[in-house]
Amino acid sequence: MTGSATEPAEPSELVERLSQALGSGAVLTGEDIEARSCDPFTHLPPASPALLRPRSTDEVAAILAQCHAAGQPVVIHGGRTGVAGGAIASASELVVSLERMNRIIEVDPIGGTMTVEAGVAIEAVQDAAAAHGLFYPIDLGSKGTATVGGTIATNAGGNRVIRWGMTRQNILGLEVVLADGTVLDLLNRFIKNNTGYDLKQLFIGSEGTLGVVCKAVLRLVPGPTSQNVALVSLDSFAKVVELLGRARGLPQLSAFEVMWQDYYAIVSGDPARRLVDPAAAFYVLVEAMGYDEENDRDAFTGLLEQAFEDGLVVDAVIASSGKQAEDIWRVREGSEILVREMGPFISFDISVDIRRADEFVVAVRAALADAFDACRSVAFGHLGDSNIHIGVHVGPDTRERTHEIEACVYGVLRDFGGALTAEHGIGTLKRDFLPEHVSPAALATMRQVRRALDPDNLVNRHVMFES
Amino acid sequence: MTGSATEPAEPSELVERLSQALGSGAVLTGEDIEARSCDPFTHLPPASPALLRPRSTDEVAAILAQCHAAGQPVVIHGGRTGVAGGAIASASELVVSLERMNRIIEVDPIGGTMTVEAGVAIEAVQDAAAAHGLFYPIDLGSKGTATVGGTIATNAGGNRVIRWGMTRQNILGLEVVLADGTVLDLLNRFIKNNTGYDLKQLFIGSEGTLGVVCKAVLRLVPGPTSQNVALVSLDSFAKVVELLGRARGLPQLSAFEVMWQDYYAIVSGDPARRLVDPAAAFYVLVEAMGYDEENDRDAFTGLLEQAFEDGLVVDAVIASSGKQAEDIWRVREGSEILVREMGPFISFDISVDIRRADEFVVAVRAALADAFDACRSVAFGHLGDSNIHIGVHVGPDTRERTHEIEACVYGVLRDFGGALTAEHGIGTLKRDFLPEHVSPAALATMRQVRRALDPDNLVNRHVMFES
Repeated sequence: MTGSATEPAEPSELVERLSQALGSGAVLTGEDIEARSCDPFTHLPPASPALLRPRSTDEVAAILAQCHAAGQPVVIHGGRTGVAGGAIASASELVVSLERMNRIIEVDPIGGTMTVEAGVAIEAVQDAAAAHGLFYPIDLGSKGTATVGGTIATNAGGNRVIRWGMTRQNILGLEVVLADGTVLDLLNRFIKNNTGYDLKQLFIGSEGTLGVVCKAVLRLVPGPTSQNVALVSLDSFAKVVELLGRARGLPQLSAFEVMWQDYYAIVSGDPARRLVDPAAAFYVLVEAMGYDEENDRDAFTGLLEQAFEDGLVVDAVIASSGKQAEDIWRVREGSEILVREMGPFISFDISVDIRRADEFVVAVRAALADAFDACRSVAFGHLGDSNIHIGVHVGPDTRERTHEIEACVYGVLRDFGGALTAEHGIGTLKRDFLPEHVSPAALATMRQVRRALDPDNLVNRHVMFES
Repeated sequence: MTGSATEPAEPSELVERLSQALGSGAVLTGEDIEARSCDPFTHLPPASPALLRPRSTDEVAAILAQCHAAGQPVVIHGGRTGVAGGAIASASELVVSLERMNRIIEVDPIGGTMTVEAGVAIEAVQDAAAAHGLFYPIDLGSKGTATVGGTIATNAGGNRVIRWGMTRQNILGLEVVLADGTVLDLLNRFIKNNTGYDLKQLFIGSEGTLGVVCKAVLRLVPGPTSQNVALVSLDSFAKVVELLGRARGLPQLSAFEVMWQDYYAIVSGDPARRLVDPAAAFYVLVEAMGYDEENDRDAFTGLLEQAFEDGLVVDAVIASSGKQAEDIWRVREGSEILVREMGPFISFDISVDIRRADEFVVAVRAALADAFDACRSVAFGHLGDSNIHIGVHVGPDTRERTHEIEACVYGVLRDFGGALTAEHGIGTLKRDFLPEHVSPAALATMRQVRRALDPDNLVNRHVMFES
C-alpha cells in the first residue's frame, strides 16, 4: 500500500521515533492536542494520537519521509482559521503543524519581495512590509491567526482582491515538501520566470493535498498613502451594477462590498453601525487606496458626487478620518452580530455572474422558502469579484440540517453556472458537492495530478476529494 | 507504446482518415506546408507530412483522439511568432494549427471578460476590447500575428507586465483538449473560484506539452484614458534603481524599460530615435497609463521633475502627443536596427535580481570577451520585472556558435541565481539548458505531471524536456 520497502510501523512506534528525532517540545499528545480546535465554528479538536511541530523544512521533510515509509497519513495545520474543515484530523492521522516555522527571512524593498516561513501570520507579514513602506495586499478578518502557508494552500481571497488579486497573484515562489519527503525548491523571486512548468501554481489552492508549503516568496506593493472609504445606499440592483462599472474606472479602487437589505437590517441594529438610513434595498462599501492624498480624494468624491447627481445613490457617508473608515468597515464585518441575532447559520461562499447576482439571491430565497418552514437569510459579499456570501438559518436545528440547506442552495447555484466556493475552498465540508460542480473530466484530471504527486494518498487525504 | 487497443496506423492512412472527417481545406500537405515558417528567425518550414486545421474544439478532440489511438505525435501551431523553437515540427509529427479557430465569442463588459477561440490574434482581442471601452493588457511586438493560444501556452509577458502581470494573470478560464482527445471545460469567468484544483494553471506556460488550449476567458480592465511616456538618461545604475523605486509609487506605472548605453548607441544612429543625448550610461522609458488625464499628467511630470531636481536624471524628453509617445516607444523597439547594424545575434531573455542587473551585464560581457575574439553585445529590457534581454554577436559565424555563446551566458546566469527564460519559454532551443536551471526534484516533478497528462508523450514531445 505504501510502495515502500520498509515494514509499516505502528503509529506509536513511529511517533516515538519522530519524538526522538525532533527533540523535546516538538511532539504534542493527549491534553495538549485536545485543547486545540480544527475549525473556528465547531471547535472540534484533532482526534490524532500526536501533533508534530517541526522547526525547519528539513524537519518537515524528515517527518514526511518517515510517515511515507510507514504508510502513515498526515494532516497539515496552519492557523486553523479555515471554514471548510480542511484541518479536521481523524484518529488514524498525525497532525503536522507549521506553527514553529514563523520566521520572516528577508525583505527586498527594490524587488518588492518578502521571503517567509509558512507559519508566519498574515498580520505579521503586513507589519514587516509596512516597516519598509511596503504592503502585502491579502487581508482577511482572521489575519492575526491565519498563516501564509494556510492562505497559500487555500488560495485565500479577502477584501482587496478586486485590486490586488487572490493569494495566487501575490506569490512568487514556494518551498514545498512532497508526500515522500522530497524538498522542492521553487523559491523564485522574479515577476517573469518561464523556466519550465510553474510548479508552484499546483500547490497554491490545492489545500495541502499535493505537498506541504514550508516557505514562500511574497510579492509586495508600495504601501498606499491614501485611503478613501464610503458607505452608500441604493434602491435597485441595476444601480449597484452601474456604480460598480463606474467605480472600476478608479485605478485606486480596492474594495466594492455589497450588502443586501436583510444583512444591513440586522447589522444596523447596532447604533454604531447605522451609518446610513436602513430603508434602502442595497448598501455598498466603496474603498480606494492610492498614493496621492489630494488627487485620490478628489477622484473618489467626484465619483460619488456624480453618482448622487445622477440619482444612482440614495444616501452616502464618506469617512473623513481613519477612525471613520474603520467604522464603515465594521458595518461590513458584522458577523458576530449575525451570530447573535440569527442564531446558528450555515455560511455560503459562492461566485456568480455579477449581472445575475441579485436574481440568484432571490432564487435562493425562494428555494429555501419552499424547502423550510422558517427560514432567514442574509446576503453580502465582494460583488466586484463576483463573490457572494449567504448566511442561512432555518431554526435551532440549523446545524443538523446543514446538508439539506446546502443541497437546496447548491441546486440553485448549478442552474446559474456559479462556483461552489469562491475563496474558502472545498476542505472536507464541501467535498461531497465537488463532483456536481466540476466536469467528470476535470475531476478525473485532478485525481491524476494527485496520484502523480502523492500516489499513496498520505497528505490531507480526506480533503477536496477522496482519491 | 501507445497504450491503446487499436493497431498503430500509418501516418498517410491516418491523414487520409482525418482528411475525410475534417472536410476539404482542413488538411494541408506538400507546398502548402513548405511555404510556412515555424520560427521567425530561421524561417524553417515544418517537416511534417500534413498540417491539420480544425474549426472547432470537437474537431481538435477528434484529431487528438485519432492520433492517440494511432500513437501519432503532434505539434501545435498558434501564430508561430515564438522565438524558442516551440513550433518546430519533425517529419514524424503532424501539425495541428488553430488558425481557423479565431472567433471572438463574447464580451461581458460588467464582469470584464472576453471569451475567445485560441486562434484569435492578440491585436484583434485588443480591438474588440477597445470597442467596449475595455483593455486587454498583454502587449507584444508580434501582437498582429501572435495568438491567444500561443501566448497562453508560453505565458507571454511583454511591455506592461509591471502593471497588469503576465498572460497567466489575465486568464480566467480555458477549454483544453488533452492528448487523448478528452475535452476539459475550465471556462471559468470568475475572479474568485476555488472549486478544486485550478487546473488551467497547469496549461498556462506549459508550452502545449500537457494539452491544446482551444478557448479562453480573458480578463479585461477598463480602457486607460491617459498615457504619459518619457525617455530619460541617467549616469549610473544606482540612479536607475532609485528612479524605479520612485516610479513604483505611481499606481499608473505601466512600463519601466531600461536600455544600456551600447543598445542606445546603435539605435540612436537613426536620427528619428536620437531623442536624448547618447552620451549617458543608461536610458529609461517610463510610461504611466491611467484614467484621469490631468492628475495623471501632474503625477508623472512631478515624478520626473523631482528626479531632475535631485540629480537622478541627466536628460529627459516627455511626450506631449500620441505621436511623440510612439516615437519614444520606437527607441525601445529598435530590433530591426540591431539586426542591420550588428549582423546575426543570439538573443537572451533572462530574469535576474534587479539590484544586480548591471553587475550581471558586466559579468556577461567579461565572460564573452574571455571566450570570443570579437564580441559585441547590447543589453536592454523590462527592468521593473527583473527581465533583461541581451543580444550577442561574435562574428559572421554567430548562429553556428549559438551553443557556445549560450553556455557562456548561462554559466554567468547560474552564478547570479537568475532565470533561464523570463518570458520567451524553453521551447526546443533552450531545452538542453533546463536541467541546469531547475533542481533535479523540480524537473522530476515536471516529468511526473507530464506523464500523468500525456503518458504516451504525443503532444509537443520535443518541447521543454524529452520525457
